[in-house]
Amino acid sequence: MQNATLYTQVRPAGGEMTSVLVRDGRIQALGGPAPAGVEIVDGGGALMLPGLIDAHAHLDKTMYGMPWYRNEVGPRLIDKIENERAEKKRLGIDPYRQSARQLVMSIGDGTSHIRSHVDVDTDIGLAAIEGVMRAREQYRDQIDVEIVAFPQSGLLIRPGTLELMDEALRMGAEVVGGLDPAGMDRDPKGHLDAIFGLAQRHGKPIDIHLHEAGELGAFSMQMTIDRVLALGMQGKVTLSHSFCLGMPDTQAVQALTEGLLKAGVHIMTTGSASRPVPNVARLHAAGVTVCTGNDGMRDTWGPYGKPDMLERTMLVGLRNNFRRDDELELALHVATYGNAQVMGLSDYGLAPGCRADFVLVDAETVAEAIVSRPVRKLVVKGGRVVARGGRALAEAP
Amino acid sequence: MQNATLYTQVRPAGGEMTSVLVRDGRIQALGGPAPAGVEIVDGGGALMLPGLIDAHAHLDKTMYGMPWYRNEVGPRLIDKIENERAEKKRLGIDPYRQSARQLVMSIGDGTSHIRSHVDVDTDIGLAAIEGVMRAREQYRDQIDVEIVAFPQSGLLIRPGTLELMDEALRMGAEVVGGLDPAGMDRDPKGHLDAIFGLAQRHGKPIDIHLHEAGELGAFSMQMTIDRVLALGMQGKVTLSHSFCLGMPDTQAVQALTEGLLKAGVHIMTTGSASRPVPNVARLHAAGVTVCTGNDGMRDTWGPYGKPDMLERTMLVGLRNNFRRDDELELALHVATYGNAQVMGLSDYGLAPGCRADFVLVDAETVAEAIVSRPVRKLVVKGGRVVARGGRALAEAP
Repeated sequence: MQNATLYTQVRPAGGEMTSVLVRDGRIQALGGPAPAGVEIVDGGGALMLPGLIDAHAHLDKTMYGMPWYRNEVGPRLIDKIENERAEKKRLGIDPYRQSARQLVMSIGDGTSHIRSHVDVDTDIGLAAIEGVMRAREQYRDQIDVEIVAFPQSGLLIRPGTLELMDEALRMGAEVVGGLDPAGMDRDPKGHLDAIFGLAQRHGKPIDIHLHEAGELGAFSMQMTIDRVLALGMQGKVTLSHSFCLGMPDTQAVQALTEGLLKAGVHIMTTGSASRPVPNVARLHAAGVTVCTGNDGMRDTWGPYGKPDMLERTMLVGLRNNFRRDDELELALHVATYGNAQVMGLSDYGLAPGCRADFVLVDAETVAEAIVSRPVRKLVVKGGRVVARGGRALAEAP
Repeated sequence: MQNATLYTQVRPAGGEMTSVLVRDGRIQALGGPAPAGVEIVDGGGALMLPGLIDAHAHLDKTMYGMPWYRNEVGPRLIDKIENERAEKKRLGIDPYRQSARQLVMSIGDGTSHIRSHVDVDTDIGLAAIEGVMRAREQYRDQIDVEIVAFPQSGLLIRPGTLELMDEALRMGAEVVGGLDPAGMDRDPKGHLDAIFGLAQRHGKPIDIHLHEAGELGAFSMQMTIDRVLALGMQGKVTLSHSFCLGMPDTQAVQALTEGLLKAGVHIMTTGSASRPVPNVARLHAAGVTVCTGNDGMRDTWGPYGKPDMLERTMLVGLRNNFRRDDELELALHVATYGNAQVMGLSDYGLAPGCRADFVLVDAETVAEAIVSRPVRKLVVKGGRVVARGGRALAEAP
């Protein structure tokens, strides 16, 4: 039997001990006998999780591997955006090198797929898109990367950006990004018209950073829902952060939730500890698809973060006051199947027929894996081992 | 020169590279030449931090080293309290063994001092106090433990508890604990009278768990402030959690802050991600002493936590939206000097004359140490090495 490996003594999703047969990059069977000639890998009783997914990254921004950056940035969103544009040049934050570094760390931590927003603006043009594309090509057998063309510095307020976005999508960016239609561009109608126009023209989905809180965010969210319904883009739009869903007016949140469900709009939350956040359990119970990601990792915006989706899952759990095991299992569901749904991965999971993207960790239960964040014993991507003992086999530049 | 060690190539608090001379358990000098015959330890350029302090632990509750506990507890505070009393017996959560396990982990993570609340109730009587006292005696050369006699199940609503608290203080518990004067005992005046009475009779400080949020918490906080002033107990009282300081009414918070300052009442925050929390920067700027601790670690209340005060400092930073280096340095100040002040440690720090309690980590800056939480390279307590490479030299039961 060619290209086949039997992983014995593993517990998929914390269930009963079994074996998993992998052939030609896919999971072929669970629990069957070892076919003749198959390579056998003893899992040692490890918990098997599907490949972790980071559905909201900024690969081009990280400063991993660079000298420590002393952060003295001001408190407003615009302070951070302007500081970043200046520091990118001053410090030489190279999009290829930096995204490659984060990819290698992510592989070591068991991440199989990443959706990365990548800056497009009139200062750097398409250099970040090109850099991240180069890195994803280099590590294509170890991790899948989806690119969102992201107008970080604004779309309409910086003429020329829309044309660059259009070009980024022609080059192969898979998703149209947006940013605070009211708060950033000061023109919610114009901003949404522009990005929905790009999406329609290129036949691509949308992922909007919506930091706007309270009633302003609710306004932009409702405008987005209306456009999705008018254009028939159900299931194709994600609203990232969506702090407005953490506002105290529960009736307004309920009305928005019903709109999100009807329009099939997905919600991305990082479980931010310092902002109002969407309630993961309530959205999930209502039927809205919730996804999560690490967001910026050690960049000019802030120093936090390891690109470890188990740590992110813990932070989502802490923010949502998840204490019970079933609650933590929901948090991991968000970081795996929720993310896979948002990214449109059809053959994701631990069932026969799925791509063999999985992680082995020493943990008794799913909840223990989240709160203990053990070193990833083995990471398999497309049937091939890509990391052992927390370290990717691939090298970073 | 006897009992002397020179730590070379270290950067105290992230400052200039220097050497630190330790003799007879204390820091004797920074930056001088090596005296003859002194043992030399090369710090390799490591960052030197003062011993980390956990000013709010529950050593008797942790389930570290026990089989995974599947948590199915209900949502209310009383659910968790009643669940814990039942599970303690059913599962055999032994206070000595469990506190010893957490102490050994804490030593490995560079913690030099712990204030631990320890349950006193009419079910277990003083067994938890005795257990934690036994563990602290065993590890007394590696870590200092201060014990708060804590009426976890209520004071007045469970007759007999007050007498047990009195006995715990006679046995050597250093601090009088309290819990939600209104929310738990349903008798704020009675509760505060009782614990201030104990404190006066025994000449001991007070540390009250104040989960009560909003206006109810503000009421209990103000009653506490009034008693402190009336009894002249300035500087002797800590209010732990103090979620009420996270309420939206900033004028009310300002008035309380002025009261706290006048009464020298300290505030302990864990940086809870799911509750309203005190604003660390504003309290500190106002002159209120803020301290922090890990609270319960993997117990029947919830599965989270490593007893690592750098991780706690990170969580406090995340909750307070600290992004700048100076903000993260404040968070570490809270977890070191703030905690030391609350615990009344007079010879704490990295200056000559201080007890030689310190930690070496590989990190460029204080902020990097917090966000990266590197393995503790070397931990020194009272001039003696107590942990290397993240592991305590002492064994756990």
